[in-house]
Amino acid sequence: MTTRRSIPFGLMLQGAGSHMNAWRHPSNPPDASINLDFAIGIARKAEAAGITFAFVADGLYINEKSIPHFLNRFEPLTVLSALAVATKKIGLAGTISTSYSEPFTVARQLASLDAISGGRAGWNVVTTPLEGTAKNFGKAHPDHELRYEIADEYLDVVQGLWDSWDDDAFVRDRATGRFFDRDKLHTLDHHGRFFQVAGPLNIQRSPQGQPVIFQAGSSDTGIGLAGKYADAVFTHSPSLDETAAFTRRVKQSAIEHGRQAGDVKIFPGVGPIVGRTAAEAEDKYQAIRNLLTIDEALAYLGRYFDHHDFTQYALDAPFPELGELGRNSFRSTTDRIKADAKQKGLSLRETALAVATPRPNFIGTAEHVADELIRWHDAGAGDGFILGFPVQAQGVDDFVELVIPVLEARGRYSRDLPGATLRDHLGLPRKASRHAAPGASQEPAAEAHA
Amino acid sequence: MTTRRSIPFGLMLQGAGSHMNAWRHPSNPPDASINLDFAIGIARKAEAAGITFAFVADGLYINEKSIPHFLNRFEPLTVLSALAVATKKIGLAGTISTSYSEPFTVARQLASLDAISGGRAGWNVVTTPLEGTAKNFGKAHPDHELRYEIADEYLDVVQGLWDSWDDDAFVRDRATGRFFDRDKLHTLDHHGRFFQVAGPLNIQRSPQGQPVIFQAGSSDTGIGLAGKYADAVFTHSPSLDETAAFTRRVKQSAIEHGRQAGDVKIFPGVGPIVGRTAAEAEDKYQAIRNLLTIDEALAYLGRYFDHHDFTQYALDAPFPELGELGRNSFRSTTDRIKADAKQKGLSLRETALAVATPRPNFIGTAEHVADELIRWHDAGAGDGFILGFPVQAQGVDDFVELVIPVLEARGRYSRDLPGATLRDHLGLPRKASRHAAPGASQEPAAEAHA
Repeated sequence: MTTRRSIPFGLMLQGAGSHMNAWRHPSNPPDASINLDFAIGIARKAEAAGITFAFVADGLYINEKSIPHFLNRFEPLTVLSALAVATKKIGLAGTISTSYSEPFTVARQLASLDAISGGRAGWNVVTTPLEGTAKNFGKAHPDHELRYEIADEYLDVVQGLWDSWDDDAFVRDRATGRFFDRDKLHTLDHHGRFFQVAGPLNIQRSPQGQPVIFQAGSSDTGIGLAGKYADAVFTHSPSLDETAAFTRRVKQSAIEHGRQAGDVKIFPGVGPIVGRTAAEAEDKYQAIRNLLTIDEALAYLGRYFDHHDFTQYALDAPFPELGELGRNSFRSTTDRIKADAKQKGLSLRETALAVATPRPNFIGTAEHVADELIRWHDAGAGDGFILGFPVQAQGVDDFVELVIPVLEARGRYSRDLPGATLRDHLGLPRKASRHAAPGASQEPAAEAHA
Repeated sequence: MTTRRSIPFGLMLQGAGSHMNAWRHPSNPPDASINLDFAIGIARKAEAAGITFAFVADGLYINEKSIPHFLNRFEPLTVLSALAVATKKIGLAGTISTSYSEPFTVARQLASLDAISGGRAGWNVVTTPLEGTAKNFGKAHPDHELRYEIADEYLDVVQGLWDSWDDDAFVRDRATGRFFDRDKLHTLDHHGRFFQVAGPLNIQRSPQGQPVIFQAGSSDTGIGLAGKYADAVFTHSPSLDETAAFTRRVKQSAIEHGRQAGDVKIFPGVGPIVGRTAAEAEDKYQAIRNLLTIDEALAYLGRYFDHHDFTQYALDAPFPELGELGRNSFRSTTDRIKADAKQKGLSLRETALAVATPRPNFIGTAEHVADELIRWHDAGAGDGFILGFPVQAQGVDDFVELVIPVLEARGRYSRDLPGATLRDHLGLPRKASRHAAPGASQEPAAEAHA
């Protein structure tokens, strides 16, 4: 796991960036989350630089207090299909909820995206934590455990539908009039606890066997689901040690489900801020902090403390005493905020700004950031990284122009993607059909399509 | 309605064509229904020729007896999103069922397609006649009237979601940090018989106000739904008189719903077969007839007669006496088949081939086809036509190269699409928001975006 080799990177396509007010940053168009030319430009730049996949996150519920770029953004399947034509090699992954969709429809749309993109589709399976979502779909929001039970059956159905047709089922012999081989059609006929789905799917098998399954759950149940199904997992990256421990847990879960550690690739999310000097990187971070008004930062802080109104306190006085407030829902976060403020003697203003714009793990010169990424990677904190920049345009430019050349100089990056499909890019074998003879899964996609 | 003016045409994108064995025709790639390059090539050729929209039909259930190109085809939203990038002006419409989808999801995906395409999206609203569909979605298939009651409420919800944000709701003022104008946000809060949908939609209003609503129901209920909601209607074209009568009925229905006759455009489906001579056109028709084996034609015929096995009869003997057989479900069709065979003294072989490959209304030289189309149009049989060629590649080539020049010479066709959006192409005003001041609907899209 710690040999010296190329580090793969994915890239979040999240409009203006991960910072809640990234739209205000001068490097971005203010309408970035709904600007197709911007999305295409970023995806092409990433592709040219050898980034292995672009990733579109999603949500199904907003209200007027939502983060601005969540209010108005593309739906993942449509924008990914558009990007499939605008790009040639980069993988294209997006979020779809198993709690608020139909497996037949989703299996089909992802298979269609995979066909359109020549085998570059990935699906980030989420169960939707946000309870308000239920109000857009006229049903009760399932609780956490139930959501994961639904997701488990849902994935089984989708993967079954994806194997409806063997790879060579469509013979299309004009001379004889034989369009398909009946022996290579598999009708699912699923009768489960949550889903009844007859099948078959009305689209051929994927160029990569099946689209890639991404997963991001960090609870025990989420890790169990990832171990069972996921080809790739996103995770937070609070520290090297915690990320390495998470990596080991997911791989252990895969092994417990009869798979191998290498069958699931872990991608910690990172948002490097890079400067030509450490001071320049620090200036960029401060500029991002300043995208937020102090009122917005106070409101953001308030979300962790039961929507407590922080405007009642003096901004430049020490962080107020809050007693038990905030210990009900986000206890570990609010305990940390209180402790930090006390220990460092921070004012309310300083605390709110630091919470709303957390300092990234990776900040400094390109050499420093590259070396840190290599150090994490060599220590087993993931199999690659997914880049989620606080400010998209600046973040991508700096990473591509400054950090990638250093990684290349260190022999730890290649701009050449070896195969054609997302599974190829991730170093995963082509997915075998559940109806195939044993051993077929070891055949790489590039060979299977030669 | 009968002034001399340009006739608009749409084009079905249905893989190899409308004939069930079109994949066998040498002008098509055999994998046409799942071949993106073919779809892009056809769409671009149509766009260059001034065709106003491309249309992707759909179905949600197959079995091994399905028409071959239904077994393996793109899902509409994904392929239309891909075509949005591959084309610049042509409208992009597709079928989605209101019986097997969620209005929040569909409203959003269509709004996203509209944003991606710069205002070219259309939605063909279907209620899904095929009962087997229910087996892929684990629920009971609603009966005809219930399906239309669901569709009515569904459309109301979708159009309400599409008006969640006023056109100028997103101010994105970097200086002040104001992203949107709260007064221009409208939360739907729909509580109906079938749907509970809070909203708002998480995407801006459409460049064309709202995506275009297509509808194709021919029952009284279907015509009522079209009169209430549809911007455009597809219909069969059994004869000029029947098509003109249908056109009048839909426009009357629009008027009964407080709209104007011109608010809904009728597009009869036609599949011209064109030759440089009448004999060449006839040869092309015969070649299409011959794509079907006689066994396939007998099976196709049998579908109308309760899957009756016609292989038990002598092929070249007169069409057999069938008594009451076939009068249960497709009575008008089976009565006509029996009467035709008797009157024309047709054999079983001749009858089966004629039913499986019906002779088109428009067949002959380009001059003949163009003049017939003009005659229908001037007689009020629709506001334009939708082209559904039995064989896609040959059909498009012949129409573009042979018929369009004649229509141009007659002063009845223009390759120039006047505006930017599908509503512009159809001669429809930009759709006003339900929250807008009265009269705003008359503002054309091109001006609204100037």
